Amino acid sequence: MAETIYLDNNATTKVAPEVLEEMMPFLRDRYGNPSSIHRFGGLVRSHIDRAREQVAALLGAHPDEITFTGCGSESDNLAIQGFYRRHGSATNIVTSMVEHPAVRSLCRFLRDHDGVELTEINVDHEGLLREDEFSRAKIGPHTLVTLMWANNETGVLFPIKKLAETVKAAGGFFHTDAVQAVGKVPINCAGDPVDMLALAGHKLHAPKGVGALYIRKGVKISPLIIGGHQENGLRAGTENVAAIVGLGKACAMAQACFMEEATRVKNMRDRLERALLTSCRDAKRNGHEGLRLPNTCNISFEFIEGEAILLLLDEKNIAASSGSACTTGSLEPSHVMRAMGLPYTLAHSSTRFSLSRYTTEAEIDAVVRALPPIIERLREISPYSNPAGPQ
Amino acid sequence: MAETIYLDNNATTKVAPEVLEEMMPFLRDRYGNPSSIHRFGGLVRSHIDRAREQVAALLGAHPDEITFTGCGSESDNLAIQGFYRRHGSATNIVTSMVEHPAVRSLCRFLRDHDGVELTEINVDHEGLLREDEFSRAKIGPHTLVTLMWANNETGVLFPIKKLAETVKAAGGFFHTDAVQAVGKVPINCAGDPVDMLALAGHKLHAPKGVGALYIRKGVKISPLIIGGHQENGLRAGTENVAAIVGLGKACAMAQACFMEEATRVKNMRDRLERALLTSCRDAKRNGHEGLRLPNTCNISFEFIEGEAILLLLDEKNIAASSGSACTTGSLEPSHVMRAMGLPYTLAHSSTRFSLSRYTTEAEIDAVVRALPPIIERLREISPYSNPAGPQ
Repeated sequence: MAETIYLDNNATTKVAPEVLEEMMPFLRDRYGNPSSIHRFGGLVRSHIDRAREQVAALLGAHPDEITFTGCGSESDNLAIQGFYRRHGSATNIVTSMVEHPAVRSLCRFLRDHDGVELTEINVDHEGLLREDEFSRAKIGPHTLVTLMWANNETGVLFPIKKLAETVKAAGGFFHTDAVQAVGKVPINCAGDPVDMLALAGHKLHAPKGVGALYIRKGVKISPLIIGGHQENGLRAGTENVAAIVGLGKACAMAQACFMEEATRVKNMRDRLERALLTSCRDAKRNGHEGLRLPNTCNISFEFIEGEAILLLLDEKNIAASSGSACTTGSLEPSHVMRAMGLPYTLAHSSTRFSLSRYTTEAEIDAVVRALPPIIERLREISPYSNPAGPQ
Repeated sequence: MAETIYLDNNATTKVAPEVLEEMMPFLRDRYGNPSSIHRFGGLVRSHIDRAREQVAALLGAHPDEITFTGCGSESDNLAIQGFYRRHGSATNIVTSMVEHPAVRSLCRFLRDHDGVELTEINVDHEGLLREDEFSRAKIGPHTLVTLMWANNETGVLFPIKKLAETVKAAGGFFHTDAVQAVGKVPINCAGDPVDMLALAGHKLHAPKGVGALYIRKGVKISPLIIGGHQENGLRAGTENVAAIVGLGKACAMAQACFMEEATRVKNMRDRLERALLTSCRDAKRNGHEGLRLPNTCNISFEFIEGEAILLLLDEKNIAASSGSACTTGSLEPSHVMRAMGLPYTLAHSSTRFSLSRYTTEAEIDAVVRALPPIIERLREISPYSNPAGPQ
């Protein structure tokens, strides 16, 4: 298989070679259990401590505020289920219509299964939170507001600082699924009144199988996985040492260069977007132009099925995506596009290109060359755009 | 640091080089998300499928009955919390006094936090389940019985087939924490009426950060981590592909050679045990001699603190353990030893040696040489064994 042009970095990213290098000793000879009393295991603990410092540094947090988990979905579940377990039937939850399934499905489960009061705030046609609606939400001492930092499909950013301030002023708690934001935009938990923040290693060039949850000092939640004393009693189970070390390194790398990287990636993203919107007719950007992650571009090509575009791109070894990888297999159009009010023919054709530090200008050139003929070809056989053609 | 003689394989094991080799492509270039529609991600899925078959084969199960998780503790939590969520307040749980914290602490949490009725069955002085007590336990259609296959501290085996048959005859459900058993003793889920079975990768030469739960076809539980469609809706979160592939390979390796390996390891374990019981006075084996894992040896050296033994062994680069690594830091003597009725002076001195396929005869020789002088030295300074000495 020829080299793949990988523009699906919001689904998952390449493990940085530097990250893998840091991990390798712990996959080979340093396999001790960090909870062991002997040095062979015990000395491993200092590497977990260092990783915790590295993650905390990227988030502007204290290391004691970082809990390692097995993935981003677990981080979100720990935050939300942990809050619910602590606050019980008094809990109410406020969220948005465009959250990742790890938040959206969970909140709906708690509503349907446990009777938790749930409010889902709408977004406008650009994917921005309807702040007028939000301002009317009921927020009190048993309220958890959970709103994503950046949308995985469109990259649209919610004004987290402002939202969190509103929630804190009303006496509630604020969690943010920042899985797509960490390593791409500045985050400062010490400065912003966020109570909990979830991240996933594999979205920022650490391996799959590790995540973290920031929990502000003083915020009390119950554990999700109960058992051993690990992670200060908040997450039982032998620590995934190699992956934790990798996550630490990935955070350190992001901290060192993400501003420069964001600019470079954004320039490529903008060039790709401009070229596609110019060269393909009936193409439309989804999501607010400015309030967006630097790496994400989501375009609808009206009258075409997104899956058909992806398959033809795949034939040319270009990896892109429609909705979230976590909703693959669903025949429904993306809940994000529906929430933004896109008509069916646009929602079904939304295509996401998500770049990373490893994306090259040559790869962007290749996509700019490859996509317009694909769109033309699909338009020719589309029953919608060519009424004279076969049904 | 000189080469470590690692006799703490019940805490965690070395990743088999063959396992790591299988994992490496997925940590390097094959980093796609298995849920992706493009080949770069989608083709990864077949490797997860193969790993599922390999795990199922070792357990005598169907691949559809295997759910991958992030660790053994998560597997136990998924089984027990998942059952409770499904059965609600009608649930009652029957377990033993000697379970791993992932089961014991969780069951007690559900009792104390959710009011679940909990019965904890005692063991006798050899660590065997008090079957007379078990036969009086209340078992019905909302009962989950959770009993470990093999004890992590003593290696003592519970008669799982017989216990499961009793539970099924009474209309209940049977889960077993088989984290220490998988890869060491024959397991046949198709033949034995076990409903759920938990395992952890890092106990059988797969990496940390992956586990699995066998769930018999037809047994319904709720997910613990809710969100994406992964693992048939039972465990959301992007799959930890490399670790899952590693777990599959480790299971295939175990299946190929564990009977031969068990014999070899047992011979070394028995030689170690005989030598220590002979050469150290006031030493006593903990746990039934025959009904035990082939790799585990637990000895109390009366009147000595187990931690002191471990520290002096550590000076000689021998890694052993007292209780579970998951309870390190606790000043209490092991709950397993207490449940077996050991007096304080014996319980506090219990020391576990757990071997693996990588243990050598030369390592056993070294421990047989090193330990008796350590015991003698500690006896000399012990306030208990030498009343004339300093208090």
